Amino acid sequence: MARSGTFPLVETPFGAVAPQYGVCSIGDRPPRVAVRLGDHALDLAALAEATGYELAAEFAQPTLNAFMARGPRAWSQTHEWVCTCLGQDAMAHRLVRLTDVSPRLPIAVADYVDFYASEHHAGNVGRMFRPDSDPLPPNWKHLPLGYHGRSGTVVVSGTPIIRPCGQRRPAGEATPVFGPTRRLDFEAEVGFVVGVPAGTPVPVAAAEEHIFGVCLVNDWSARDIQTWEYRPLGPFLGKSFATSMSAWILPLSALDAARVPPPPRDHTLLDYLADNPDRPAGLDLTLEVGLNATVLARPPFASMYYTFAQQLAHLTSNGATLRTGDLFASGTVSGAAPRQRGCLLELTWNGTQPVTLDDGRTRTFLEDGDEVVITATAPGPEDHHIAVGEVAGSVAAAVC
Amino acid sequence: MARSGTFPLVETPFGAVAPQYGVCSIGDRPPRVAVRLGDHALDLAALAEATGYELAAEFAQPTLNAFMARGPRAWSQTHEWVCTCLGQDAMAHRLVRLTDVSPRLPIAVADYVDFYASEHHAGNVGRMFRPDSDPLPPNWKHLPLGYHGRSGTVVVSGTPIIRPCGQRRPAGEATPVFGPTRRLDFEAEVGFVVGVPAGTPVPVAAAEEHIFGVCLVNDWSARDIQTWEYRPLGPFLGKSFATSMSAWILPLSALDAARVPPPPRDHTLLDYLADNPDRPAGLDLTLEVGLNATVLARPPFASMYYTFAQQLAHLTSNGATLRTGDLFASGTVSGAAPRQRGCLLELTWNGTQPVTLDDGRTRTFLEDGDEVVITATAPGPEDHHIAVGEVAGSVAAAVC
Repeated sequence: MARSGTFPLVETPFGAVAPQYGVCSIGDRPPRVAVRLGDHALDLAALAEATGYELAAEFAQPTLNAFMARGPRAWSQTHEWVCTCLGQDAMAHRLVRLTDVSPRLPIAVADYVDFYASEHHAGNVGRMFRPDSDPLPPNWKHLPLGYHGRSGTVVVSGTPIIRPCGQRRPAGEATPVFGPTRRLDFEAEVGFVVGVPAGTPVPVAAAEEHIFGVCLVNDWSARDIQTWEYRPLGPFLGKSFATSMSAWILPLSALDAARVPPPPRDHTLLDYLADNPDRPAGLDLTLEVGLNATVLARPPFASMYYTFAQQLAHLTSNGATLRTGDLFASGTVSGAAPRQRGCLLELTWNGTQPVTLDDGRTRTFLEDGDEVVITATAPGPEDHHIAVGEVAGSVAAAVC
Repeated sequence: MARSGTFPLVETPFGAVAPQYGVCSIGDRPPRVAVRLGDHALDLAALAEATGYELAAEFAQPTLNAFMARGPRAWSQTHEWVCTCLGQDAMAHRLVRLTDVSPRLPIAVADYVDFYASEHHAGNVGRMFRPDSDPLPPNWKHLPLGYHGRSGTVVVSGTPIIRPCGQRRPAGEATPVFGPTRRLDFEAEVGFVVGVPAGTPVPVAAAEEHIFGVCLVNDWSARDIQTWEYRPLGPFLGKSFATSMSAWILPLSALDAARVPPPPRDHTLLDYLADNPDRPAGLDLTLEVGLNATVLARPPFASMYYTFAQQLAHLTSNGATLRTGDLFASGTVSGAAPRQRGCLLELTWNGTQPVTLDDGRTRTFLEDGDEVVITATAPGPEDHHIAVGEVAGSVAAAVC
């Protein structure tokens, strides 16, 4: 049964929760579509087969793509169907404990784009690396800067991250050396998954017709490799070794109660980027970044200068087509306060101010064995707070 | 029948040619794998079915990916099988005129990476845009710079290119405007298609175990959009609207006779990038760039500083995995001489020195209706010159 409110939570025997969609193996079955409901999962392929639900073929796939491509009507119908099924006592036995399932990468990633939409993050980076210039580049307040990342190395939460090797130029030296990165970092970000393709530019007001859902992203970064390589073509090998995303995707429609206006604009944005006054697209998520169980930061997503709707409008403004499975991430989420910064580069001010963990040890950048866990919550209906997701990963030793 | 020589040409009733693989519809059949032999094509799916060849299932696909994933042994077996079939008189009727087939995008593009490997191109760009610095950035002679492009907008040769819209900042103004690009350019490049995936770094000497073939690429570029957006994250919307690639892929092994040592190195390259002295990986291709049937330039690929083998080694040096269908392009191919430059940016020195076409009209950047055709030839066995491919595209009016 659907609750009333700005969006329906799903009533389960264990409480009311926001559903999240993913792909997992339950028992010895091949991976297929499931829905996460709090600490339990429900095999949607099996349920659709048993009940004759029309999306059985889409749910039998090893990715969410076929389901996502069906569009908003099918997404909301599925939500209602899940609510109805769970309202029947006979269905409770189908809930499997989350600890008994093996989640997979939930989507076949088409193109992956990473933005740079936090003014605090971009400003801090500018202050560190271009101290003689304005912190923000002159284009920053006019467009959501972004770049394409490597979709083939997007991995599901929980996948170990092997410390990458690469070229770095030691301070004061003329020539580079090759070896394991000494400045491995995380970046706490929010990701958006495209369900419905587009062949023409997507206006700000139409973003929701294309975006299936929201996840968390850790855009692992090797700062020393990045610093040496990034001029003039931008990030490449300092990022392309791995990007982690949540196993479970929260439908964007579940965040209706979290919508807030974005920050005030310093310049009027060009028409194609104008905020939609009827439907603010800022999202009041609070991220939490844990390093070995110490909470390092709580970055506020509501402070992001550009919204997901503006990012999608910009991304397609040149006619670039969208495909089901396109993933775009917000860029590092950092707030104004020191403990709201979403990466070690900022938290340690480029390694000059170590952070202290709860066990007394310190960190400038990540060490082998370190585990980073990023979670987020958001306001839901009826004073509920809903879990937006989780992305976790541990650092394994380099192999070069 | 295979010819003797450094690689076998295929004898056809119309002469000896290097085979190229692609995907096309012949008659009313759905798209599937075919081989181009000069001015004719041969439906490999039909031929495999008729002869019981073991790759019939791979050839029945709408992309080359399944065939490419089978690896070098299957590639050379297929070459021999094609030669044998064409040695039988009864097979000649299977050759279809190229004008009667509709080629499709030959591969499902996984990740697309664009390099920047011509010293002349990078130097010219540096002289134009960073006149107060060294023409080459300090990292340039130490690593093959590159960035990820948008794989979803890679299109097959012949696809019209709609003039993109975007933000540009007019000279002397503080704020940008939005509209059709005024500085649409081509970039003549050579592309390499990955057949066999890899989970660990690919050494320079192992590149050929993974690369299926070679094509030509036009990396269309909107210079005004690019100039405004590229700092600090590199090219994004100035490139992502479209990238054209050949319809037909030449197996890398067909270029054995074209192998030449790369240019002398200014610095010793780090070990993982060291040239393989036993097998030079420079390729003596001569590109030809035509604009509305005027030959604008003949860029020499042998002058590229970094080889495809070094690009693949660099791309995977951080542990980034390779997938079947990964495409990487060389970057604009430019030689030392003015008529060897591979883009209008260089040929017109950023629009300050128009080029004159054969009909007397001039160009600084591309106009609507302009057609760009890039071809290349290479030395083959027994004094043959072989066609490496062709990539063509015409500019259509903007729709913003």
